Amino acid sequence: MKMLTHMDKPGEECGIFGVYGHPEASNITYLGLYALQHRGQESCGIVSSDMNHLHAHKSMGLVADAFSEDVLKDLRGPSAIGHVRYSTTGDTSVNNAQPFVVEYSMGEIAIAHNGNLVNAGILRDELEAYGSIFQSGMDTETIIHLMATSREGSLINRLTYALGRVRGAYSLLLLTEKGMIAARDPNGFRPLALGRLKDAWIVASETCAFDLIEAEYIRDIEPGELLFIDNNGLESRKPFEEAPYTPCIFEFIYFARPDSKIFDGANVYTIRKNLGRELARECHVDADVVIAVPDSGVPAAVGYAEQSGIQLQVGLIRNHYVGRTFIEPKETIRHFGVKIKLNAISDVIKGKKVVVVDDSLVRGTTSRKIIKMIRNAGASEVHMRISSPPTICSCFYGIDTPTKKELIASSHTVDEISRFITSDSLGYLSVDGLYRAVESAGVDFCDACFTGVYPLELPENVIQPQLRLFSGL
Amino acid sequence: MKMLTHMDKPGEECGIFGVYGHPEASNITYLGLYALQHRGQESCGIVSSDMNHLHAHKSMGLVADAFSEDVLKDLRGPSAIGHVRYSTTGDTSVNNAQPFVVEYSMGEIAIAHNGNLVNAGILRDELEAYGSIFQSGMDTETIIHLMATSREGSLINRLTYALGRVRGAYSLLLLTEKGMIAARDPNGFRPLALGRLKDAWIVASETCAFDLIEAEYIRDIEPGELLFIDNNGLESRKPFEEAPYTPCIFEFIYFARPDSKIFDGANVYTIRKNLGRELARECHVDADVVIAVPDSGVPAAVGYAEQSGIQLQVGLIRNHYVGRTFIEPKETIRHFGVKIKLNAISDVIKGKKVVVVDDSLVRGTTSRKIIKMIRNAGASEVHMRISSPPTICSCFYGIDTPTKKELIASSHTVDEISRFITSDSLGYLSVDGLYRAVESAGVDFCDACFTGVYPLELPENVIQPQLRLFSGL
Amino acid sequence: MKMLTHMDKPGEECGIFGVYGHPEASNITYLGLYALQHRGQESCGIVSSDMNHLHAHKSMGLVADAFSEDVLKDLRGPSAIGHVRYSTTGDTSVNNAQPFVVEYSMGEIAIAHNGNLVNAGILRDELEAYGSIFQSGMDTETIIHLMATSREGSLINRLTYALGRVRGAYSLLLLTEKGMIAARDPNGFRPLALGRLKDAWIVASETCAFDLIEAEYIRDIEPGELLFIDNNGLESRKPFEEAPYTPCIFEFIYFARPDSKIFDGANVYTIRKNLGRELARECHVDADVVIAVPDSGVPAAVGYAEQSGIQLQVGLIRNHYVGRTFIEPKETIRHFGVKIKLNAISDVIKGKKVVVVDDSLVRGTTSRKIIKMIRNAGASEVHMRISSPPTICSCFYGIDTPTKKELIASSHTVDEISRFITSDSLGYLSVDGLYRAVESAGVDFCDACFTGVYPLELPENVIQPQLRLFSGL
Amino acid sequence: MKMLTHMDKPGEECGIFGVYGHPEASNITYLGLYALQHRGQESCGIVSSDMNHLHAHKSMGLVADAFSEDVLKDLRGPSAIGHVRYSTTGDTSVNNAQPFVVEYSMGEIAIAHNGNLVNAGILRDELEAYGSIFQSGMDTETIIHLMATSREGSLINRLTYALGRVRGAYSLLLLTEKGMIAARDPNGFRPLALGRLKDAWIVASETCAFDLIEAEYIRDIEPGELLFIDNNGLESRKPFEEAPYTPCIFEFIYFARPDSKIFDGANVYTIRKNLGRELARECHVDADVVIAVPDSGVPAAVGYAEQSGIQLQVGLIRNHYVGRTFIEPKETIRHFGVKIKLNAISDVIKGKKVVVVDDSLVRGTTSRKIIKMIRNAGASEVHMRISSPPTICSCFYGIDTPTKKELIASSHTVDEISRFITSDSLGYLSVDGLYRAVESAGVDFCDACFTGVYPLELPENVIQPQLRLFSGL
Repeated sequence: MKMLTHMDKPGEECGIFGVYGHPEASNITYLGLYALQHRGQESCGIVSSDMNHLHAHKSMGLVADAFSEDVLKDLRGPSAIGHVRYSTTGDTSVNNAQPFVVEYSMGEIAIAHNGNLVNAGILRDELEAYGSIFQSGMDTETIIHLMATSREGSLINRLTYALGRVRGAYSLLLLTEKGMIAARDPNGFRPLALGRLKDAWIVASETCAFDLIEAEYIRDIEPGELLFIDNNGLESRKPFEEAPYTPCIFEFIYFARPDSKIFDGANVYTIRKNLGRELARECHVDADVVIAVPDSGVPAAVGYAEQSGIQLQVGLIRNHYVGRTFIEPKETIRHFGVKIKLNAISDVIKGKKVVVVDDSLVRGTTSRKIIKMIRNAGASEVHMRISSPPTICSCFYGIDTPTKKELIASSHTVDEISRFITSDSLGYLSVDGLYRAVESAGVDFCDACFTGVYPLELPENVIQPQLRLFSGL
Repeated sequence: MKMLTHMDKPGEECGIFGVYGHPEASNITYLGLYALQHRGQESCGIVSSDMNHLHAHKSMGLVADAFSEDVLKDLRGPSAIGHVRYSTTGDTSVNNAQPFVVEYSMGEIAIAHNGNLVNAGILRDELEAYGSIFQSGMDTETIIHLMATSREGSLINRLTYALGRVRGAYSLLLLTEKGMIAARDPNGFRPLALGRLKDAWIVASETCAFDLIEAEYIRDIEPGELLFIDNNGLESRKPFEEAPYTPCIFEFIYFARPDSKIFDGANVYTIRKNLGRELARECHVDADVVIAVPDSGVPAAVGYAEQSGIQLQVGLIRNHYVGRTFIEPKETIRHFGVKIKLNAISDVIKGKKVVVVDDSLVRGTTSRKIIKMIRNAGASEVHMRISSPPTICSCFYGIDTPTKKELIASSHTVDEISRFITSDSLGYLSVDGLYRAVESAGVDFCDACFTGVYPLELPENVIQPQLRLFSGL
Repeated sequence: MKMLTHMDKPGEECGIFGVYGHPEASNITYLGLYALQHRGQESCGIVSSDMNHLHAHKSMGLVADAFSEDVLKDLRGPSAIGHVRYSTTGDTSVNNAQPFVVEYSMGEIAIAHNGNLVNAGILRDELEAYGSIFQSGMDTETIIHLMATSREGSLINRLTYALGRVRGAYSLLLLTEKGMIAARDPNGFRPLALGRLKDAWIVASETCAFDLIEAEYIRDIEPGELLFIDNNGLESRKPFEEAPYTPCIFEFIYFARPDSKIFDGANVYTIRKNLGRELARECHVDADVVIAVPDSGVPAAVGYAEQSGIQLQVGLIRNHYVGRTFIEPKETIRHFGVKIKLNAISDVIKGKKVVVVDDSLVRGTTSRKIIKMIRNAGASEVHMRISSPPTICSCFYGIDTPTKKELIASSHTVDEISRFITSDSLGYLSVDGLYRAVESAGVDFCDACFTGVYPLELPENVIQPQLRLFSGL
Repeated sequence: MKMLTHMDKPGEECGIFGVYGHPEASNITYLGLYALQHRGQESCGIVSSDMNHLHAHKSMGLVADAFSEDVLKDLRGPSAIGHVRYSTTGDTSVNNAQPFVVEYSMGEIAIAHNGNLVNAGILRDELEAYGSIFQSGMDTETIIHLMATSREGSLINRLTYALGRVRGAYSLLLLTEKGMIAARDPNGFRPLALGRLKDAWIVASETCAFDLIEAEYIRDIEPGELLFIDNNGLESRKPFEEAPYTPCIFEFIYFARPDSKIFDGANVYTIRKNLGRELARECHVDADVVIAVPDSGVPAAVGYAEQSGIQLQVGLIRNHYVGRTFIEPKETIRHFGVKIKLNAISDVIKGKKVVVVDDSLVRGTTSRKIIKMIRNAGASEVHMRISSPPTICSCFYGIDTPTKKELIASSHTVDEISRFITSDSLGYLSVDGLYRAVESAGVDFCDACFTGVYPLELPENVIQPQLRLFSGL
């Protein structure tokens, strides 16, 4: 056990799933988490309620490896919540796996959180000063301590108090012995959808989880909504002041699964293909073949090929057998980098002018290696096309981006980046093009990673390092 | 330890890799096996030689999970061979993992085998009658016992004797303290290629392994060739009577990786796309969209779309996080079948006439589920297109096919199969179309699974069950 | 993870060890815990401080199995505390292993506790009502929460406040980044000794831990003493009202190791032999041979044989290879009971009048099986002699005794017990005899298990079930 | 997997157990092995037969840790054999765990062996030259290969042939689908007893295994006897030329459990006590107290004290919690040696003239450390007494002794040894005294370790290094 340190970097991506009122709640949750596995592969957990007690199992690793039949059988009862998590903070301890479960004065409670609380550090200092002892480095734990120290009498009021004090992005599921609560922050940064499976209520980060269990999509949990589910049915509250609805545009670009519908039913694949079409309109190039960086670049590549009329081919093959512990062998065999995951098909590429489509470009190092690989396979020209604008700022609302300093586009022009990645040309989608592509979704978005405009004020200790970097621009 | 039983069903697919003369031989082999992981995910192993002794590590599971840095460090020395294996015989014991290693009168020897020996059972009975004790259920072990009981004086002559007695498909690597030997059966059923990495010699089932380690492809190990590699260089022998060169056509259709070149340099992706083009020519249908069953159906779908002019879309999303121990939950949640792996994107499919392209159709049950999924997503018509001919016979040369009885096309017409899988239409590629598509490879092939013509006679105990089934045609 | 429940039964035995100022503090602690393994075999843990941070490793199982060289190397720094634990509360989770480590407003702190706090449940309810969230079911955690919620400014004052609020038995070690604290409750129920190893300070439950590491015994931590150890040396405080010194007499009878000196230097073996001599004086019987129930009955048997003049023999052999997971095979092979651990030597016993000496008799079931075994080996008479008085009450200060109801002597006469265990005669040591045997120790004792007189008042929820049982006598 | 090497040193001690005709054969065998655990703690295994197939489980470590309920349930059928093993050859691989199981031309067979074959290396070379492939480094495997290559028609004749070719010590159990065979070499070096449990036959190395399962001792398997047990009952054969009966005297001195009766019913404890009495007669010394080196020295110490009239005390405490992986911490804390296992009680020893009784003295290093420990505890004089003669030669029949060179008594006088171990005096039992003590057993013995007279000729490659050493005496 390494001692805990205050979270200094938002580096956590997650998926959450819950079911209330199903005889096989933990089995359903297992499947739901499996469908949401792309949202976090580092750790996972399920907590069930048998109406008297909670039962929990958490583990490092993939859902399919973490749960056995015996474990699922022990997770008894008709309701359950689950969580998958990815973190780059190096805090790879099962202590930080969710759902987080405690016993406090009102009984047992579990919480699963997708998002990031920007004032968690400040609240933690305050709570510790009054005697609270934290068990983890998770910002999520702050919510439970606020509930525990609240002087309110009911669970509902305690949760309202706690969420009234936190700032940031949260799609939440809470489970007590008798009920389940879904909540979404007033800005609605992260997706959260309500579904129905026979008599049971389902809540999930994305609708692809509904598809697997054959549940029906009902509606999104609304921004600022607290939805209480128990044997008396649903009770919805909106206790907080209304805020602009600013869902995360990056869910469409990269994070969500293409077969999901998010943010009131917009299909991710369709929007991603639109991004590719807009990109082809904005950054046309005369070429022989369009290839995608698999898997995430495929939908935009399809759109790009359609719009440009250039033929689409499979030019890069992805090896999915990475396993949990791939070793990059030391010494003379170095720097395999993306070669571990990707290989070029020279028969497709040799002597061709190639357009390569990827969803985003963060540090530039991966693109540089991909372009080298394509050139080695014999391409005569390599044109990089990115189906989103330059990433210039870090996310503080739940997407794991590097610090601003590490984002190549925060300090370099497109030409400079093109030279760095050694492409013959580099084209990004414009912010306007981005909005055209997603307009079918019909809402405003958080686009802070592309614009630096954060819809929710960041506390000083979070924003200051950013400001220093801003001044350097 | 379950006691051993004679192999009654050829159910083993494998990949092999070897390196001679590299300071980090086991690291190189680890990477090579990782690139060949698609040829077998059940078990893997590496044996190295430090010129005095062999060192071995074998394990169930994926390459990336089976080897740690410490394990690789213990696999000392400048030469190594490795093996990945998949088996449906239920014999999931690490005892049957390869390379197989023994000490016998001539010293230590390891063997890694891709293929299937059709007279292994007969030879085993004979060897046991004279006192040999087998350690595994692998047909491969027969070769070592033949070498051990040979009265020849040299390793080369013992191996020639042993391979002279076995019948069937073998691409082999053997490792002794001082040398490495590559061998390929006279028919050349399975691929095996020779490469060069600086001063080291590399041998691998497919060239995708060369790409990862940046080795250069030199040539194939020839049918009937025994290639001895030691500090004096290469020595090639062809001690056996020449046989027709009949490489496995199914490597092109399904088994090999699209980025590999096999059988004297033919690119798998290109041929697979040709299969799709021929399929479009032979089995055209008026439709709105072409989608692939990912991942193996993608190249043929690209070809089909190109040839037919119907737009290609991503209509099915594949979840790659299956893990090692996925549980299909029992009781009320049943029969998820392909839903665990695939999900349809209804925005792509709804109201559309859909062509679905897959590489082969074995039992029909998976296709039936995929078509149901596509219909549930709203397709108005579903037309199944298979980029190979009907599979009517089992393979006895190293591809894991079910028994003839289980092959739906062995006893049903195309119309019957179409009704079973509930497609609006079903089209297979013809055998002629198949040969047009692969003609660029310029060789004859083993197509027994599609024609029932086995290029190498099968012993009675193997062929008889088949013959009984044949009579039912 | 099973949810936590309030501790309803004191069922925990422990050993603690600490070192301050040694370059290999965690190695030393590992050895110290190994020497104290008899005080708890269920879980163990070590926390070290590198003067900036704490490092912890806890595990179920034996010390020798729980720590590897790598683990010990990670437990960096010149100070460390450790804990071994046995519990019958069924709470076999590593969550309840100690030392307990948290980060709170004053930094990092670890605590290791031997004893039992009788008002922990009341304090926990109170702390939870004000918002504290407990991580474990350990009474020990109460102390940390009291420290965290204290309004005092310094660590010393916070600890004084916390210990001022708890009631019960505690020998404690606390470790912070900069210092180590040893504390013992005002009654001094459990042993705790201070030693010296070159420049380092050592604290241990028993002196046998000093012997292994070749440390010198300095003195006991005194009842009611708080001893602060840091780079400035030792600082002793006695902030609490003085209480009668009532160390646990059962440490001499059974719990401590025979080679230890406890409670100001009294040797356990010598006192245990005295118990046997007094027993021989009080309960003489004409017999052929004295045998011990190994290992704990051996010293008293030696004393009994010496005093009585009857020859001592090895009549029962103990199998020490019990391992961690011994399965008592089901079905027809039942009720092996003590046979798994003990076997009689019939050549020693056959035809003989046998005196069997054991240290205590709790439920009577084990004695009954031992006597059956001795009779089956051919004894003509079996006389049971117990080197302590009848156990009539449960311990609430840190010895794991069953509930009063399960103690056979709480509701049966000696004659009834003798009939139950099928002995020809049964003799207990009297309370007077007990005090004669231990008089060399020169102090008063807690003898509540034999007399029902509890030196420290028990809270109502603890004492009431006892009172009901008392009235039944 | 480390490659195999020919066994160059007999370094293996074992226990074997078998049951035929009991509904819970594997459970019974588990208990039997547990009782024989003192004969080998490194690895263990059980093979059962369900009358059609054998089922096996082998593991490193203790019996109680190696078998779970699930594992035992899979070991189906009414007969089973088991094995525990200790080896110092460093060959700590589960490959060398027994029972050894193979499939050969006559079906499945398992073998469990206690003893050592002196011509195994020669036979192995011969068998390998004719094509046999060995799976392990065990001499035991030779027997199976001899059976497999035999030209005899029946199992009985094949086994007779095989045992007719091996030389050395063997107490054997073999299991086939239909029967169990017990065999003992003509010299009867190792014990092997036949018992009865209801309708089942039991065979075990020592009778303590009968006691645990409540089986009745019937008789020893006789020297040179082959006992076939199947559904038709027992069939005994003695196909070999008679040899002098020379059971191992060291079983009495050290190896067997004190509660066992071996070699036709002689109780080990009684003989061990006799050894102590003879030792007291031969090597009297004026002293205050007799203490044993626990646990093996205790019976002789009891005898010594009885005969000498000097009082017996517990002066050394043994820590039994050594676990499987005890680390002796490196760097400054060195050379704990025996302190890990033993601690002296200074209250017993201080100012006293102490007689310390141990069963044997091999290298002298342990005794030296024990004497240092006793002196540090305050003894005024330390007199070492060994209840066997000086060990001057290695055992080649199944006891793990170091090489002759390492045996201090092979090259030093008693005085020299006494100076080396720093005792005030050292006394060994004489060979005559040894025979007086064991005379109740009424047989001749192998005493080669004390006399250098080997009852069975050793092959040249084994004996020659010995002869060279002899000439140096």
